[in-house]
Amino acid sequence: MSRPKIAILGAGYGGIMTAVRLQKEMGANEAEVTLVNKHNYHYQTTWLHEPAAGTMHHDKTRIMIDEVIDNNKINFVQDTVVEIKPEEKRVILENGELTYDYLVIGLGFEPATFGIKGLKENAFSIRSVNSVRKIKEHIEYQFASYNNEPEERNDLITIIVGGAGFTGIEFVGELAERVPELCEEFDIDRSKVRIINIEASPTLLPGFDEELVEYAQNLLERKGVEFKTSTMIKEVTEDGVIIGEGEEIKAATVVWTGGVQGNSIVANSGFETNRGRVPVRDDQRTPDYDNVFVVGDCALLINKEIDRPYPPTAQIAIQAAHVVSKNVLAMIRGKELESFTPDIKGTVASLGRGEAIGKVYNKKLYGATASAMKKIIDNRYLLMLGGPGLVWKKGKLKLF
Amino acid sequence: MSRPKIAILGAGYGGIMTAVRLQKEMGANEAEVTLVNKHNYHYQTTWLHEPAAGTMHHDKTRIMIDEVIDNNKINFVQDTVVEIKPEEKRVILENGELTYDYLVIGLGFEPATFGIKGLKENAFSIRSVNSVRKIKEHIEYQFASYNNEPEERNDLITIIVGGAGFTGIEFVGELAERVPELCEEFDIDRSKVRIINIEASPTLLPGFDEELVEYAQNLLERKGVEFKTSTMIKEVTEDGVIIGEGEEIKAATVVWTGGVQGNSIVANSGFETNRGRVPVRDDQRTPDYDNVFVVGDCALLINKEIDRPYPPTAQIAIQAAHVVSKNVLAMIRGKELESFTPDIKGTVASLGRGEAIGKVYNKKLYGATASAMKKIIDNRYLLMLGGPGLVWKKGKLKLF
Repeated sequence: MSRPKIAILGAGYGGIMTAVRLQKEMGANEAEVTLVNKHNYHYQTTWLHEPAAGTMHHDKTRIMIDEVIDNNKINFVQDTVVEIKPEEKRVILENGELTYDYLVIGLGFEPATFGIKGLKENAFSIRSVNSVRKIKEHIEYQFASYNNEPEERNDLITIIVGGAGFTGIEFVGELAERVPELCEEFDIDRSKVRIINIEASPTLLPGFDEELVEYAQNLLERKGVEFKTSTMIKEVTEDGVIIGEGEEIKAATVVWTGGVQGNSIVANSGFETNRGRVPVRDDQRTPDYDNVFVVGDCALLINKEIDRPYPPTAQIAIQAAHVVSKNVLAMIRGKELESFTPDIKGTVASLGRGEAIGKVYNKKLYGATASAMKKIIDNRYLLMLGGPGLVWKKGKLKLF
Repeated sequence: MSRPKIAILGAGYGGIMTAVRLQKEMGANEAEVTLVNKHNYHYQTTWLHEPAAGTMHHDKTRIMIDEVIDNNKINFVQDTVVEIKPEEKRVILENGELTYDYLVIGLGFEPATFGIKGLKENAFSIRSVNSVRKIKEHIEYQFASYNNEPEERNDLITIIVGGAGFTGIEFVGELAERVPELCEEFDIDRSKVRIINIEASPTLLPGFDEELVEYAQNLLERKGVEFKTSTMIKEVTEDGVIIGEGEEIKAATVVWTGGVQGNSIVANSGFETNRGRVPVRDDQRTPDYDNVFVVGDCALLINKEIDRPYPPTAQIAIQAAHVVSKNVLAMIRGKELESFTPDIKGTVASLGRGEAIGKVYNKKLYGATASAMKKIIDNRYLLMLGGPGLVWKKGKLKLF
């Protein structure tokens, strides 16, 4: 009798935690599990603003898959998913294909461009190890070029960050730390450098606690970040951005953090989606296929208390992975499936070295306390993923 | 009675050594000396291939002028020379002007493009701290971009170096060290990276000892450098170079080391020049002006033994500076001027870490011995410039 085949697509927070949980919970020979991922490493998406700014090495954010996956229990295939054919229970990869009995889609997000002209072509996004080391090197190259220009070109050292959500705010916080180092390295007057955050809403971190938002804004402004709220980016050009009524701000670096949507492979494979995200059932299965689960940023979860979608976060992806792994095994074992309800413990946003804001169990946190809490949360994930050894290797051990 | 005014233009090897010698040898209140330089630092031009490749930090190559110049004895003006008006004994600076009784021109070299189309616009040159940190960052940016491209674009990780003179050879030697680090940093297969050196002459290091040249070529080829000798660069485009009969080699990085000429300010100021270099008298004065000396790369010196010009080197600039400083003082004191004849002690070219070739006092040197000798030569200059403290701070102390 052949074992049921489980395929997990993507090794982001949702995919890798599903794999790690299955590896722990399934019996010997109970199922044949295959994890597919483009790279041979998992990375901490929520840390990527740091290597993007150059305040952390990108290797700190990534964990080799063979460090956490036991290849006696789970097959790992390094390949890129091209299309899913749910009717045929098949997945087309760039260099092959595979079949499954149960599928877990954890293909992550892609930037949402909201139809803004030129954004896709001319703006960077904080998306992967590859994308962020390109941002870092791009910024350094602009700074290195500055003193080679015959005329003063301050656009070279102007960095525009579109979006003041968590990623945008955390990124400008890191940039504020990084810029003085870059000025020192490339002999540039700090006062010439601009870090400009542009947000369409009237406030940073829309929906977050007002007092904390004010704290964050004051702190970042003191560190030299300019905020333009209630300001739409109309277009991203090769030279910068066009905002509001047609005003141009010249900038060699534009990074878009203004929104994400589910990986377009999912919609392109014929699944029902809303901004690329599948409105999953309570047990994380797609509406149409009983054997297909979605975990992480490709899943649309509704917060029933307020009848609005939960924002896609690592916290929810990790929690959902636990339920998905149990539900896949329940199906194999003929047991009942569990419902998933996110348990939002809190949110902390870093604001550069030693500074953060957050709400944890409805308690407001500022400054060093919030910053330490952020690191504890990050370390807790590593502990779940790979145990104390991984915390030691990749953890944020300097809490204060 | 007012003191005679000496102006020294440029703080390269020739200019700064003239200033340091004058500071040591002139009597109190004997002359008013002003040193003009674009930056507030001197740099080791002969080391620049290392920070260009990224194997040494650029700060190691530079020495702040106030570290070696005593501002009680010599005025330092940080400004850029625009034009010299020798008839009026005036120098026009970007932000002012100055007058002199005696002038020392040490304005250095600029790349000679030999009329190659697109070279000036599309090729980098190893010329200054600013130019080399741009090269380093440019290369890193191309490597960082590589894994973000939808199609394989090996031109991003192809580096073309035009010219196999000393700078070209030393630079590819450093690149061969650096590329494996870049491949590790950006997850790139080393075998995809190309380092191509293109030289119009039939051999590397034209005119140098054949046995040593063969040693260098074999060693660098083993490290993955490709040589195309007897090959003309016809054009440098945005995409790479056109060579020979129209063949294109695509490369995101083209660095031109194929030749230098004197700073064009000298010819533009009406001095007699040959490829930008002034055919100076034996005492280093210009043919036309008794009170104007030229030192370093802007001076054309003829080796009378073979009736050909000496190549412009740091070694000659440093020796000439000694004679120039003595001759300026001799003029003030009404004494006779000295003739200058270069005393070529030898030449050593590095070939990456721990490897070099050279001839010193006509003895051939290879490998670790040559590499150590190169470092001793570099340290000796620092000793002359700023004493043991400077050797300690900026010297190459790991001889082996």
